[in-house]
Amino acid sequence: MSVASKFETTVTLRTPYLLFLGEADFDARAKTAFGLRDWAPKLCLGQIRLPACKVTLGLPDMTPAAAAIAGAGSLVIGVAPKGGQIAENWIPTLRLAIDAGLDIVSGMHDSLEDIPGLAEAAKARGVRLINVRNPPLDLPTGTGRKRTGKRLLTVGTDCALGKKYTALAIANAMRAQGIDADFRATGQTGIMIAGRGLPMDAVVADFSAGAAECLSPDAAPDHWDIVEGQGALFHPAYAGVTLGLLHGSQPDALVLCHDPAISRIKSLPVFPTPSLEVAAARYLEAGALTNPAIRLVGVSLITENMDEVTRQRVLGDAEQRLGVPAFDPLKTSLQPVIDRMLGR
Amino acid sequence: MSVASKFETTVTLRTPYLLFLGEADFDARAKTAFGLRDWAPKLCLGQIRLPACKVTLGLPDMTPAAAAIAGAGSLVIGVAPKGGQIAENWIPTLRLAIDAGLDIVSGMHDSLEDIPGLAEAAKARGVRLINVRNPPLDLPTGTGRKRTGKRLLTVGTDCALGKKYTALAIANAMRAQGIDADFRATGQTGIMIAGRGLPMDAVVADFSAGAAECLSPDAAPDHWDIVEGQGALFHPAYAGVTLGLLHGSQPDALVLCHDPAISRIKSLPVFPTPSLEVAAARYLEAGALTNPAIRLVGVSLITENMDEVTRQRVLGDAEQRLGVPAFDPLKTSLQPVIDRMLGR
Repeated sequence: MSVASKFETTVTLRTPYLLFLGEADFDARAKTAFGLRDWAPKLCLGQIRLPACKVTLGLPDMTPAAAAIAGAGSLVIGVAPKGGQIAENWIPTLRLAIDAGLDIVSGMHDSLEDIPGLAEAAKARGVRLINVRNPPLDLPTGTGRKRTGKRLLTVGTDCALGKKYTALAIANAMRAQGIDADFRATGQTGIMIAGRGLPMDAVVADFSAGAAECLSPDAAPDHWDIVEGQGALFHPAYAGVTLGLLHGSQPDALVLCHDPAISRIKSLPVFPTPSLEVAAARYLEAGALTNPAIRLVGVSLITENMDEVTRQRVLGDAEQRLGVPAFDPLKTSLQPVIDRMLGR
Repeated sequence: MSVASKFETTVTLRTPYLLFLGEADFDARAKTAFGLRDWAPKLCLGQIRLPACKVTLGLPDMTPAAAAIAGAGSLVIGVAPKGGQIAENWIPTLRLAIDAGLDIVSGMHDSLEDIPGLAEAAKARGVRLINVRNPPLDLPTGTGRKRTGKRLLTVGTDCALGKKYTALAIANAMRAQGIDADFRATGQTGIMIAGRGLPMDAVVADFSAGAAECLSPDAAPDHWDIVEGQGALFHPAYAGVTLGLLHGSQPDALVLCHDPAISRIKSLPVFPTPSLEVAAARYLEAGALTNPAIRLVGVSLITENMDEVTRQRVLGDAEQRLGVPAFDPLKTSLQPVIDRMLGR
């Protein structure tokens, strides 16, 4: 467990978690909780559900008091109800969690502080109300100073192409092999999974690169930070976020994420996605500003709906075009990309 | 005069201004006020100075009450004192301005709201305390939708290379010829000069492009918005701001600003500035995402410390290298670049 001080430049959560499912009536409503169970199983101590809840994570049901005794640090709101608002009938549970000494962690648009009495109760009990959408204050501007250690950043031809899960899968596979590696979260789900991170899209633009510098500080020479990418250089709304993160991360290695099924920006389909070749060239060109040694080490493709023959053909095609290993982090081995990262 | 509603997506100031010089002891301390006098003379009604003030703008000294009677809309803090803080002995003047019905406009780090009683007095009198560093709330994300009208954006090989004054000079020269053109301000000084704008560097990164879209809305087919650039694609700290502004502005025309005397990023000299050719190519490449018809129309160079022979040689060299007119907005004619914009 770690507790954030006012001088921290990342959001740091107290783990492990008690996952709150509210009245979720189908699994997708509790997407955050399922993501945490799947990607951070060691941080998920138990679940707490209201009577009308129809889903389960398969974790023990626990009261906040029981979870606190078992070592929980936070109650995490793992459900996104219709309308996206904090429901009235959640409040007694949130109060119980505070009384039990748990932080409350939310990624919702609604502010926990707006619930009457909650902020006062949290202050009196010495616990925190944390919205993982809110970046820390007092972030610095970027310096471009070369930091020690190694970094990989996942980038994409569009948003929402598996940049988070690719980074998580690579970090997990490296750690499983005893390689010194950390997943560095840049979005709200990633921050909950990692227990810390920075919501890059919510940082004021002038501090984007500086925030990314804080996210992956100096490290041992053979340590790897595996940084979750955000947005895409080819997205008309979010390319600035992507570029600030790229410059501040100063990655040694890039993995390009792509969905072979798409050819248009999903949220703005009037814009085409770039070819793999153009995408790789533009990311390398931009990234060279703060790390001239940047190189592409892999292509991460979404192939889950393909039969095995198609999958191998699509992966082989990408490998041939870009000259680096192609993989699907949910379907195929990560060993070739890790070998490429490590220069094996 | 116009008054901002809560639904506006730009900062809008009430003009003309009474310029407050405080106790400025030399001209550079009142840089903001001098910039306003030089670039927005029609908006500068008068000045107000404390007894110890040693500088003058050559404008009539006025009390807030006299300025209000003469039609002033705002008192603008035009001085940056040592330490950058609002001084105790300014407060009576600020109170008088509020009593006279003037808005108070500040670009300082200190918040006007933190001065005891000031916010209450402003509310009671129905005037506003405006910090031009603060962007409006509720900015949208970008859409990339093509807007009507024409746009020019100034970009640079580094920060602080005359992007603001180049844009102002072009807009002024066009208007002097009866061409329908507006200067669009993206930084605090520019906003004061224009009486409106958006502080792009203070916008949350996710909304950068959307903010830039708001800044230059649909317009008549032959209207030109001349947009003040921010940062530089080649600056390790601020490139994200630059890219968001470039994508959201969707410029038809770029003017590249450069100082021939520099070859390193001024604030981070470990980084070189790019050649003019590389800079132009990279801005055009990035800008083509939201406006495939983007083209370079001019190069703006800082030549004020050169003799005339050197100036002409440097301008001629840049023209030859980039194939567009080169000019110094403070020293040479803008006609060639305007002709190029208009396809003459």
